Amino acid sequence: MSDAAIRTAVLGAQGRMGSEAVKAVENAQDMELVAALGRGDSLKKVLEAGATHIVDLTVPDVTEDNVRFAAENGLHAVVGTTGWDGERLARLEALLEQNPQVGVLIAPNFALGSVLASAFAAKAAQYFESAEIIELHHPGKVDAPSGTAARTAELMGQARREAGVGPSPDATQKDPGGARGAVVEDIHVHSVRLRGLVAHQEVLLGSAGEQLTFRHDSFDRASFMPGVLLGLRTAASRPGLTHGLDGYLDLGL
Amino acid sequence: MSDAAIRTAVLGAQGRMGSEAVKAVENAQDMELVAALGRGDSLKKVLEAGATHIVDLTVPDVTEDNVRFAAENGLHAVVGTTGWDGERLARLEALLEQNPQVGVLIAPNFALGSVLASAFAAKAAQYFESAEIIELHHPGKVDAPSGTAARTAELMGQARREAGVGPSPDATQKDPGGARGAVVEDIHVHSVRLRGLVAHQEVLLGSAGEQLTFRHDSFDRASFMPGVLLGLRTAASRPGLTHGLDGYLDLGL
Amino acid sequence: MSDAAIRTAVLGAQGRMGSEAVKAVENAQDMELVAALGRGDSLKKVLEAGATHIVDLTVPDVTEDNVRFAAENGLHAVVGTTGWDGERLARLEALLEQNPQVGVLIAPNFALGSVLASAFAAKAAQYFESAEIIELHHPGKVDAPSGTAARTAELMGQARREAGVGPSPDATQKDPGGARGAVVEDIHVHSVRLRGLVAHQEVLLGSAGEQLTFRHDSFDRASFMPGVLLGLRTAASRPGLTHGLDGYLDLGL
Amino acid sequence: MSDAAIRTAVLGAQGRMGSEAVKAVENAQDMELVAALGRGDSLKKVLEAGATHIVDLTVPDVTEDNVRFAAENGLHAVVGTTGWDGERLARLEALLEQNPQVGVLIAPNFALGSVLASAFAAKAAQYFESAEIIELHHPGKVDAPSGTAARTAELMGQARREAGVGPSPDATQKDPGGARGAVVEDIHVHSVRLRGLVAHQEVLLGSAGEQLTFRHDSFDRASFMPGVLLGLRTAASRPGLTHGLDGYLDLGL
Repeated sequence: MSDAAIRTAVLGAQGRMGSEAVKAVENAQDMELVAALGRGDSLKKVLEAGATHIVDLTVPDVTEDNVRFAAENGLHAVVGTTGWDGERLARLEALLEQNPQVGVLIAPNFALGSVLASAFAAKAAQYFESAEIIELHHPGKVDAPSGTAARTAELMGQARREAGVGPSPDATQKDPGGARGAVVEDIHVHSVRLRGLVAHQEVLLGSAGEQLTFRHDSFDRASFMPGVLLGLRTAASRPGLTHGLDGYLDLGL
Repeated sequence: MSDAAIRTAVLGAQGRMGSEAVKAVENAQDMELVAALGRGDSLKKVLEAGATHIVDLTVPDVTEDNVRFAAENGLHAVVGTTGWDGERLARLEALLEQNPQVGVLIAPNFALGSVLASAFAAKAAQYFESAEIIELHHPGKVDAPSGTAARTAELMGQARREAGVGPSPDATQKDPGGARGAVVEDIHVHSVRLRGLVAHQEVLLGSAGEQLTFRHDSFDRASFMPGVLLGLRTAASRPGLTHGLDGYLDLGL
Repeated sequence: MSDAAIRTAVLGAQGRMGSEAVKAVENAQDMELVAALGRGDSLKKVLEAGATHIVDLTVPDVTEDNVRFAAENGLHAVVGTTGWDGERLARLEALLEQNPQVGVLIAPNFALGSVLASAFAAKAAQYFESAEIIELHHPGKVDAPSGTAARTAELMGQARREAGVGPSPDATQKDPGGARGAVVEDIHVHSVRLRGLVAHQEVLLGSAGEQLTFRHDSFDRASFMPGVLLGLRTAASRPGLTHGLDGYLDLGL
Repeated sequence: MSDAAIRTAVLGAQGRMGSEAVKAVENAQDMELVAALGRGDSLKKVLEAGATHIVDLTVPDVTEDNVRFAAENGLHAVVGTTGWDGERLARLEALLEQNPQVGVLIAPNFALGSVLASAFAAKAAQYFESAEIIELHHPGKVDAPSGTAARTAELMGQARREAGVGPSPDATQKDPGGARGAVVEDIHVHSVRLRGLVAHQEVLLGSAGEQLTFRHDSFDRASFMPGVLLGLRTAASRPGLTHGLDGYLDLGL
């Protein structure tokens, strides 16, 4: 392991995502796992181990304290825990002004393909007359549509409004059972629940004579790890707060 | 043209489907177009031209008279006109008992791929835990779901019930906008409307670790013609009334 | 557990498929796992445990002895082990003539969706002008095309030949790099290798104005277990040798 | 029609693309068709009609003269004719330096969805381990792979090389028939030819546990017209030569 390795501490190391992150950091050539903290472990261990970066995959109750501790001690942070509302983000930005060399990434979604698909869909939506979304998940999911589908629809709808594109054409007069699905920001969203599936999404765009489709398939939690590693490799060069993995991608969007 | 050519009269030859049928019969090596009748033409022309088969692509008001005329004169008939309710079918069956050598095909759908996909979907549905349908059409369609999707769901739901398969698993608790779509015979059906599309349908079947998908795309009215020609080639060897093109396919289902 | 439970012994219980089968039998309401044999265990255990059925998921070297032992002792057998060539099958058929109440299923593929897709593809191929296959697998696969794709192409090609359907139309004059793929029985077959995938296959059928597509996705070894259980539930009612899971499906094909 | 309407002359108005362009310009609220020239018509008509823009959909022999005529007379030009090699482009750029207010778009592909899909594919390719392309066309196509697929592979391969991404993993050892397809810039490209299809392309990207797919379908020549209209609306605000429709899209890529 070279001196230049990214010395990483994983917080929440016993959780489902955390244990994947432990494996991913261990397997990365340019990283060293220096600490793996579970529930009840003291944050001091992070400093004792000489970490330069933390990955926070804990729970909403403790994630803010963890990230503040990192920032105050000059450690970069990659955060996948939920619960970062506007108030928390504002407090963190204030803190980072006092620690201007620290980079923090807070990302609701680490699947590169999903983040790319959402960004491209938002970009392309203004160039087509029609836009709809189909999301497909395992049958254990309790909410419909998925959070990712709702967010994608919001981004697409907003981009279409700003470009002056009206709602998709639709002559439907009879739909007694609700087959046309939910409508989010003028975008129809359809939710399929099927045994065997994990998490999948299709964005469909259509104009006269052509269709453009983006499809993302998540088969496995492993799909989040390339995004976590990209976060660790990038955080030190992006001081301040970045919200969303797309902020680290070279999309120029 | 050999003596054995199928001597065909097209009724409704100026309509959208009828004009396609005229072209298809003209181009078929084993057929001869002997008459093409439009609105107001006398049925006598069919006999004068020496037709052995008719294709009826007219309107509900006249289709029954046309088919009766064919049957009474010993001509086989392939019928794509709508409006054949139970009463009409019963009258036709009675007439065919008196003309036992005549074969009549009445088909609501001549797209071979669509008919095959529906038949296979009904067959396969009992072997999977989950089953849903997505149909996608041009935005000028007024009803949702499509008639084909509703019929496919009925066939699948019936097959699942007969095999003792329960509803697809679904843990959905929150669906304020109706993203889960319509439910037909315990099958969720989703309707997409997109500029650029014509008529498309996906049947999705899932079990632990696997998915089976049937997709049919109709790009063009031309897709109905192979079914019409197959009807003409088969009718003479299937005396009596056949309802649905699948009755002429060698599916053994 | 009712008296009527299917008393099952799993042979090869420590292998990857075998350990899945142990779990699947344990979880099945209508089955009882009475023995789980690994390498070196004596077949006598099967009889001592009172098994009525065996599942053989061992290795080519021992599978024939296992199945002969089952047949001679009146046990039904479901066999997923490879290595059953024509000679072995002939010897087994002879043996089963002497044990006419025993049912044996030898299946190279237990994924219901894959078996159904192949059967439907073979059935439908004769009704379309064009037919091609795309198979997609993980990048660790050493052979291209996959065995399943090659078999599917053989079945489709044979069905098309019997129905008098010629090769798919193809005007290709320039293809220096071989983009048109392999040709098996007049069917073009394309092999994709992509990280993240497991085992997937698409059969594409096309005629003027329409396309029919069958897609099967295997995400997980769990997908083979419904086929194994269906085999156990059916074997007793199908005396003699059945080769291929489609023989147990109610396809009427 | 307002005074601000884009006064457009279509050159090559009797060709297949040209006649579509005539219809599209006529139907556009913000445009006026002031001239439609066919083979043999004098270019003077363009000036007499008071055109401010031309659309050139002619043939390689005359396109350069047409565009020079436009530039010298201060007209903006949107060009879909092929045959613009490096030499011609250099001559045109020199001419535009002397007419600096004129905007010229030369685009090999006017399908917005196709242009977007290629741009996104090139952008995303560096973030995935594996990348392949499947293109699907009607069976009358003489070359494989399609020009669009070859160009997309070049763009993707180049982007991957610049980002230091190696070839896609591939353990294939046996491929006697060439099922793995053509290789362009380390990207495997597969060509399907199927009756019923028009022009379709899928870009498949994969990493551990996830897949990202872009699919573009061209069903009809009408799909090129939104791109032509966007060219006409944009040319006046983009003086100089723009090569490729993506130069007019707000992609920020």
